[in-house]
Amino acid sequence: MSIPRSILFVTGNKHKLADVTSILGNEFEIKNHSYDLPEIQGSLQDIVTEKCRAAAEIVQGPVLTEDTWLSYDAMNGLPGPYIKWFLNSIGCDGLYHMLDGFPTKDAKAGCTFGYTEGPGKPIHMFDGILHGEVVSPRGDKGFGWNSIFQPNGHEKTYAEMDDDERNACSHRFLAAMKLRDFLQSQI
Amino acid sequence: MSIPRSILFVTGNKHKLADVTSILGNEFEIKNHSYDLPEIQGSLQDIVTEKCRAAAEIVQGPVLTEDTWLSYDAMNGLPGPYIKWFLNSIGCDGLYHMLDGFPTKDAKAGCTFGYTEGPGKPIHMFDGILHGEVVSPRGDKGFGWNSIFQPNGHEKTYAEMDDDERNACSHRFLAAMKLRDFLQSQI
Repeated sequence: MSIPRSILFVTGNKHKLADVTSILGNEFEIKNHSYDLPEIQGSLQDIVTEKCRAAAEIVQGPVLTEDTWLSYDAMNGLPGPYIKWFLNSIGCDGLYHMLDGFPTKDAKAGCTFGYTEGPGKPIHMFDGILHGEVVSPRGDKGFGWNSIFQPNGHEKTYAEMDDDERNACSHRFLAAMKLRDFLQSQI
Repeated sequence: MSIPRSILFVTGNKHKLADVTSILGNEFEIKNHSYDLPEIQGSLQDIVTEKCRAAAEIVQGPVLTEDTWLSYDAMNGLPGPYIKWFLNSIGCDGLYHMLDGFPTKDAKAGCTFGYTEGPGKPIHMFDGILHGEVVSPRGDKGFGWNSIFQPNGHEKTYAEMDDDERNACSHRFLAAMKLRDFLQSQI
């Protein structure tokens, strides 16, 4: 198995691209393309697998995909991978108030990369999970639901942190480190 | 176009099968098979289309599929088609308390049938929508989230109604009536 020094990261989200470039850009050339990839309903593993498989079919070569999720402990893991639909529908304020009727605001922010060498090849997954709390929205940096997630041990939400500060602790950073270790071990 | 007098309804849910048989069984022979069909994320129309298309590919003939959803007005339509994941994770009590932080409990119960004559043929959709309110769980009849949905103009939840009573007013009944009219017009 040979890993190219450049990686095609399939995402339409410029913030995710910037994060990944910031974290891995010193060691790998991060190329980008946006395709309309199917997202199935199901377990996170199934969702990542199907998305990465579909991307490899289109690209006909090595490809990196990413899924982000926000899991509320009180909801046994939901909204989880469906977080983007809720963010679009009710915004960060609504995502916070969804928990008004529940005893805990504990949550996990997660990122799962899928990487494959190409169609029919194994799909490797690398996840990063950060425990924290859902809080009333604070801050205007970052993107998505960053303003309501405060990692444990921090007094700032993601959206109150500078990019460097967030990328040094985030769920995406943790997943990218695993991806980096894997890629380097294959060179 | 010719519509057979027997319909293959692809569902693994015995309650939905019983409902459809109860509503349409006098006029059509309802056959049933359960396949593991893909459920994508996206608009209801996209979800129904892809599921019906996949079912027709497997069956290689006419097929009926069904999607059920519960849309909270306060959440601009969500959980909607993702309701089953929430039901599985937090149950009816959790589904009720999700709205504690929102000013309205108004909701819409929906059912959308997909029908096609076979692979590559048009997919016809028939939906039934019933306006109502999300209430604290009451009743033990019915299934799924029936105990938290009280249709407008009624003092009972779905789960406090007998099958006949529920099937005479439900979202699934409304959709099945449109499906029946369509099928009869094609004979």
